[in-house]
Amino acid sequence: MPARSPLAPAADPLLPPLAGVRLAAAQAAVRYRNRTDVCLIELAAGTRVAGVFTRSLTAAAPVELCRAHLAGGRARAILVNSGNANAFTGREGRAAAERCAAALAERLGCGRREIFVASTGVIGEPLPDERIRAKLDELAAGAAPDGWAAAARAIMTTDTFPKLATRTARIDGVEVRLNGIAKGSGMIAPDMATMLAFVATDATLPAPALQALLQRATDRSFNCITVDSDTSTSDSLLLCATGQVRHARIAGAADRRLGDFRAHLEALLVDLACQVVRDGEGARKFITVKVGGAASARAARRIALAIANSPLVKTAIAGEDANWGRIVMAVGKAGERADRDRLSIAIGGTLIAEAGRRRDHYDEAPVAAHMKGAEIDIAVDVGVGRGAARVWTCDLTHGYIDINADYRS
Amino acid sequence: MPARSPLAPAADPLLPPLAGVRLAAAQAAVRYRNRTDVCLIELAAGTRVAGVFTRSLTAAAPVELCRAHLAGGRARAILVNSGNANAFTGREGRAAAERCAAALAERLGCGRREIFVASTGVIGEPLPDERIRAKLDELAAGAAPDGWAAAARAIMTTDTFPKLATRTARIDGVEVRLNGIAKGSGMIAPDMATMLAFVATDATLPAPALQALLQRATDRSFNCITVDSDTSTSDSLLLCATGQVRHARIAGAADRRLGDFRAHLEALLVDLACQVVRDGEGARKFITVKVGGAASARAARRIALAIANSPLVKTAIAGEDANWGRIVMAVGKAGERADRDRLSIAIGGTLIAEAGRRRDHYDEAPVAAHMKGAEIDIAVDVGVGRGAARVWTCDLTHGYIDINADYRS
Repeated sequence: MPARSPLAPAADPLLPPLAGVRLAAAQAAVRYRNRTDVCLIELAAGTRVAGVFTRSLTAAAPVELCRAHLAGGRARAILVNSGNANAFTGREGRAAAERCAAALAERLGCGRREIFVASTGVIGEPLPDERIRAKLDELAAGAAPDGWAAAARAIMTTDTFPKLATRTARIDGVEVRLNGIAKGSGMIAPDMATMLAFVATDATLPAPALQALLQRATDRSFNCITVDSDTSTSDSLLLCATGQVRHARIAGAADRRLGDFRAHLEALLVDLACQVVRDGEGARKFITVKVGGAASARAARRIALAIANSPLVKTAIAGEDANWGRIVMAVGKAGERADRDRLSIAIGGTLIAEAGRRRDHYDEAPVAAHMKGAEIDIAVDVGVGRGAARVWTCDLTHGYIDINADYRS
Repeated sequence: MPARSPLAPAADPLLPPLAGVRLAAAQAAVRYRNRTDVCLIELAAGTRVAGVFTRSLTAAAPVELCRAHLAGGRARAILVNSGNANAFTGREGRAAAERCAAALAERLGCGRREIFVASTGVIGEPLPDERIRAKLDELAAGAAPDGWAAAARAIMTTDTFPKLATRTARIDGVEVRLNGIAKGSGMIAPDMATMLAFVATDATLPAPALQALLQRATDRSFNCITVDSDTSTSDSLLLCATGQVRHARIAGAADRRLGDFRAHLEALLVDLACQVVRDGEGARKFITVKVGGAASARAARRIALAIANSPLVKTAIAGEDANWGRIVMAVGKAGERADRDRLSIAIGGTLIAEAGRRRDHYDEAPVAAHMKGAEIDIAVDVGVGRGAARVWTCDLTHGYIDINADYRS
């Protein structure tokens, strides 16, 4: 077990129970020994569900199954395993996912399309689904409202700490809760460090509204993080609303009474997404990149991601070098409009370059001090418009090479 | 001086003189001491020129100057310095480039627009152009037909070996020569390891035909290599035709009599481009990625570059791990059409996966042996069409981190 990331929170947050959700973990020995590797998230009857998934065109079998089941808009359970991603496993992989869903539906007495599955781990190996199915009775019998931490641990692969977050929001004055767990370190990695996240709320929301809320919040959180620019075949994010709390009836995502809920959902997803970055493989620095002055918010995000994904920017930060020239390079390669002669760059709040050149009396001392810290802030204005974006990433270190150049051996 | 790359050719090729080209190098101490850092490529009167440049939107001042001068289609000289890229230097940077061109035009008695300049090195520092101009007399006086190797050395930055190539082609039965030099290691790097390449031929070709020939050959050579996916602000490739050899008059690039010339030009550019990859920062393995079965050649190239740019693929190869799962991942993230259930992957000529899954009796032994070598071949068929492409890259090693995380200190 690798040491806990130096960027991890000091302590894992304790998640309170959330009405309508019970969780359990078990040891199925899918691949790992002496640790939990399957978890069940059981949801109250009537739970609505939304989901977003990897854009990979070689998506894994569980992703295909979830996409199909999402059309129903209802969920009674999510079954997750670590150790094997059931990806690039052909028709047999799809059949294995279907067998798990069917067995669990039978155990819970619900429709198959109310079951969602996710798998993370090595790819190209057949999923030993019989080992997972053999644990369904134990999981169903053991499911309890306080199982959040156990579930977060069971879905870890190369993660060095479990990722949990909770928020409380109000819908028209009525308090509702949001709980979430996630895993991932590197977009993909030694054991396919796929990003998986499962979020639940006790609010009462229809599936189409949930889907719109989730899409918007994802664009501002998980779609704004990058570790190594690689995309897993299995990335999945599910949002469930158990409907256990009664409040004013909400018809759609645009309802004004959702303002507070929307803000807290986004904050919770940002929290989980940043925890994934803080567990980035080999990460020693947590980097926030803000871009302003772009032609649009979309353009700003592309520029910010070009900076955040640049191996040269990430290695410079690993070396604690305030190498703003590489930031200029990354802006240039993003393919979005930027005015070279209006570009400004600040690191740690110190303006280094403006109007397309280094400032005349630039003092590197405060920037050098900032670079020695674990939290690095980069702010760029590209001087053409009002589009802005914020993304998060980590540095590129020898640790990343160690982890990724030598795992199957 | 770092050790010569283990992937470098055993000996540097010796370039024969090429009619109409004389070269010289000098020590101007732009940034480096005790080595040559400026070179002059002097071209016979009547030389035609074509060029392709970085797509960066923060392109350096010399690139802007070259783009403007290219409209004239004629060249009498190329002046190159290493040590300072004259990039992100604002209006003053453009003025410095103009002063160099003006001084050289005066010295050679030609128009300013017949002078081309290129700079490579640190960015954001003012170019001490007076040091370069002070060497123009020495360069002009010393220019000689046998100066190719000296010129190739003068333009090096973090390169560990000079890059030279020569070819002989026939145009309608008449022999013509092609000589070229290049520099670059990493798309950009410690000292901005910009890619620069200068190619000359003694053939007699009009500028528009040269431009079309160059564009096509570049798409199949320099546009098919990647070291770290970063894009320099200064990448420049110039092709000059001195017109010293008389052959059948060629009106355009589509002329059938150019078939042999076209093939040799492409081969020469591929040769130089692969030398750049072989000098990739920290590179220990030279990787060829072939993609077939794509919807188009363009789609195939995008998929091949997604594989070649994937940090997870590159680190796996550094670790001599035949991790074909990461190749599947990279195909999926390319955003081009691929049939997951028809995908096949071969490494070192051994078919590992077909029809979307690992072969039943896959024997890893020959693949493991191939991974231990310095030349790695990956072949992927994505199963949807007939588009094919070939790209070249290198592995991602601790050496890359060493070089890039610690250069300005």
